[in-house]
Amino acid sequence: MTGFLAEARAVCGDAYVQDGTAIEPRYLQPARYAAGQAAALVRPGRRDEAARVLALAAACGLRVVVQGAHTGLVRAGTPDDAQGEVLLSTERLREVFELDLLDRTLRVSSGYRLSEINERLEPHGLWFPVDLSADPSIGGMVAHNTGGTRMLRYGDVRANTLALEVVLAEPAGQVVRFGQGLQKDNSALALGQLFIGSSGSLGLVSEVTIKLSPLPRQRAVALVAPSSLDEVFPLYAEVMQRWGGLVSAFEGISRAALEAGLHGQDLARWFGGQLPDYAMLIELSSELPAEQLALGELLQHWLEQEFETGRVRDAVLDADEAIWGMRHRISEGLRAQGKVIGLDLSLPRRHFMRLRERGAAWLAERFPQLRLADFGHLGDGGMHFNMVWPLEAGAWHAEQELALREGLYALVAELGGSISAEHGVGPQLQAAYRAHWTRVEPGVLEWARRVQMLWDPHGRLGKVDWGG
Amino acid sequence: MTGFLAEARAVCGDAYVQDGTAIEPRYLQPARYAAGQAAALVRPGRRDEAARVLALAAACGLRVVVQGAHTGLVRAGTPDDAQGEVLLSTERLREVFELDLLDRTLRVSSGYRLSEINERLEPHGLWFPVDLSADPSIGGMVAHNTGGTRMLRYGDVRANTLALEVVLAEPAGQVVRFGQGLQKDNSALALGQLFIGSSGSLGLVSEVTIKLSPLPRQRAVALVAPSSLDEVFPLYAEVMQRWGGLVSAFEGISRAALEAGLHGQDLARWFGGQLPDYAMLIELSSELPAEQLALGELLQHWLEQEFETGRVRDAVLDADEAIWGMRHRISEGLRAQGKVIGLDLSLPRRHFMRLRERGAAWLAERFPQLRLADFGHLGDGGMHFNMVWPLEAGAWHAEQELALREGLYALVAELGGSISAEHGVGPQLQAAYRAHWTRVEPGVLEWARRVQMLWDPHGRLGKVDWGG
Repeated sequence: MTGFLAEARAVCGDAYVQDGTAIEPRYLQPARYAAGQAAALVRPGRRDEAARVLALAAACGLRVVVQGAHTGLVRAGTPDDAQGEVLLSTERLREVFELDLLDRTLRVSSGYRLSEINERLEPHGLWFPVDLSADPSIGGMVAHNTGGTRMLRYGDVRANTLALEVVLAEPAGQVVRFGQGLQKDNSALALGQLFIGSSGSLGLVSEVTIKLSPLPRQRAVALVAPSSLDEVFPLYAEVMQRWGGLVSAFEGISRAALEAGLHGQDLARWFGGQLPDYAMLIELSSELPAEQLALGELLQHWLEQEFETGRVRDAVLDADEAIWGMRHRISEGLRAQGKVIGLDLSLPRRHFMRLRERGAAWLAERFPQLRLADFGHLGDGGMHFNMVWPLEAGAWHAEQELALREGLYALVAELGGSISAEHGVGPQLQAAYRAHWTRVEPGVLEWARRVQMLWDPHGRLGKVDWGG
Repeated sequence: MTGFLAEARAVCGDAYVQDGTAIEPRYLQPARYAAGQAAALVRPGRRDEAARVLALAAACGLRVVVQGAHTGLVRAGTPDDAQGEVLLSTERLREVFELDLLDRTLRVSSGYRLSEINERLEPHGLWFPVDLSADPSIGGMVAHNTGGTRMLRYGDVRANTLALEVVLAEPAGQVVRFGQGLQKDNSALALGQLFIGSSGSLGLVSEVTIKLSPLPRQRAVALVAPSSLDEVFPLYAEVMQRWGGLVSAFEGISRAALEAGLHGQDLARWFGGQLPDYAMLIELSSELPAEQLALGELLQHWLEQEFETGRVRDAVLDADEAIWGMRHRISEGLRAQGKVIGLDLSLPRRHFMRLRERGAAWLAERFPQLRLADFGHLGDGGMHFNMVWPLEAGAWHAEQELALREGLYALVAELGGSISAEHGVGPQLQAAYRAHWTRVEPGVLEWARRVQMLWDPHGRLGKVDWGG
């Protein structure tokens, strides 16, 4: 360890290597869950420094956990071994920021954050449209293949990634570029795809080339109360068929989540104070200005029609800030009520409401004190199946959470769903991952193990065992 | 061999196993290049038959070449060994056709053809938007990750594939499903991605779940003559920024290609008979009907503006049939002039015109009789760098083609481009593939070799050596 520290300091500079209790807490404290621990924190400033650190760690028999902005929700970037694990933060990997305005691509080092990237793109009328409430690094977004609220229109990180540069665990420190950043290219095996969504377990993503999109010139947003739950998906199907590529968000929000998002506000502004059991947030957006295509009017006119047919009970139309503000305050509102247990699911839409019903029934029987407050991305099949253990119910124990997840994940598998729609896989989901694929397709575990062995045969990198 | 034939007949039925000279020529004759040869042709009707054929072939020491509709252009589905290779056609793999209208997904056996899929989807107002002139099987499309003319808006096969079922070479006949067909799912390593664009070399794709899109309700198409070549990309940038998601095609067509596409037609209808040196085919499309968004008027109005600014010299606006008809007749028109040598390239747009210039200069020096007639997908960076060796020039020799490809591919690599934008890799490109990645990023070859060894350690499948 002493040798590693001395050499890492020689490579990266003293200021960027910390060890033991000197490690700043934010690098060890994830957004959720307890703090981790590490033997050292190293923050290389260039890809070649990162490569040398990986080689050094391998030579010293230390494992490496790669961390971006530490906003992940599955603990994949949090080390937990004070002796054997080196935490490698990519936040100083900022060598490259090459914007190609004609190709609308950005070649960027993995340490840049989403917000910075979009601030720099904005003057050019462009953005990276994988839209999240959190502010991760672009490397972290690649490692978890994030989706976000506009995935419906723009796709996930995978759909917007054109090339990757990775620093490998074996041979330790080897740098390979997969892809040349071209939009259309079938001249090689898609090896780079493996790293997208791999939770930093197959290699360190040091640089990425991403596709950019024109910033919309207008958005129209409505919060819609259907006359009953049965109308939600017919309305969804109608919206998609009617507007297709103009639909940039279609969210579903349960009444409990709505209440959390509106906590402390004047409810009279929202459905005259009569909150519905379920609401749909519908957003249209376009590169065309409103004088060429009046999105707000289109949406309003359609809502009036659906009000006539009886499928829509009420709707709130406004500038997007109030509605999206409510949407983004849901999580915070839930946390004010107690301990939040969040499951990041996705489902075939035909089973979406079934999961809500059967999940709620199962909860009522097994955990009657838990309040279900689900919300999510109907538009891409995602569902944040969030539950609140109220403050007054006392402590929430780890064994309870284990039983809860086991019960609900079994139901998800039965209904053909995913146990991690957009958060990815990390230690927090390791057991659930194994159980899920053992149920659904065991061959996946065996092949994943072999692929992990190929890229990291000595188990030097990351916190996920893809073999289960 | 006798044992294999008897057992394969027992598995698939006598009618679906042919050997030696009894093999129908169309299975051996690719769209381009000379006919191949095979020890046997087997056409299983179900995935389990396909699995047993792979196992049988392995047991008998025979290699297997998987073939879809045999429309590929790199010879990846054409066997060439009359003793050791079994040709496995997927055309009878038609067990599954499961349309999920709510998810807008289709789970489909790999033997279905693109045209059939779209015919069946049309009554539902849906289509699979990877739009090609050829009519491949969906399995072949996955194997080559085809892009097509509307890739600009809809993405390639990869962007529209949600799950795959593959029959593996090792353990021979093992069936594994990667993905559950969900739109948002990050609960596993992206192993299925490896098979997309793998030319049938890592496994047999038996089934795929694809994303569908709403059929546009209108299209507006223009063929635009810029005032000079220098205006092409500024106009492209303007169109993308102005219309973004509405732009469904942006093609570039050289004068020579235009002449080929218009061969035998009344030229007076086209730019008053004054064909430009270069033309752009611009298509807008939308799910909205014309009374809500007048695409034709938008396009016309913009063209009038650009005519005023002087960036556009002339334009042909019409119902899309005539313009697309011209576009689709280019290849046929070129073949009427002589031997066509087609390079399927893509480039960073900033080097697109440079490749045309430097390529033309190189041709003028080395092959003065070759006529360049390029056309392609400016919108996604693709360029069909097609050349015609005129009938009157006599025979075109293999050594000439080799020298031609070597010279031009070296230029492509220097300019950061791809030697196979959408056709994929097959024996026809094997040498160019090795040369390209040796120049650009040799690590890719070594890692590709290891991945191929993982899935097919005994070299039983396909016609590509990904190690180079």
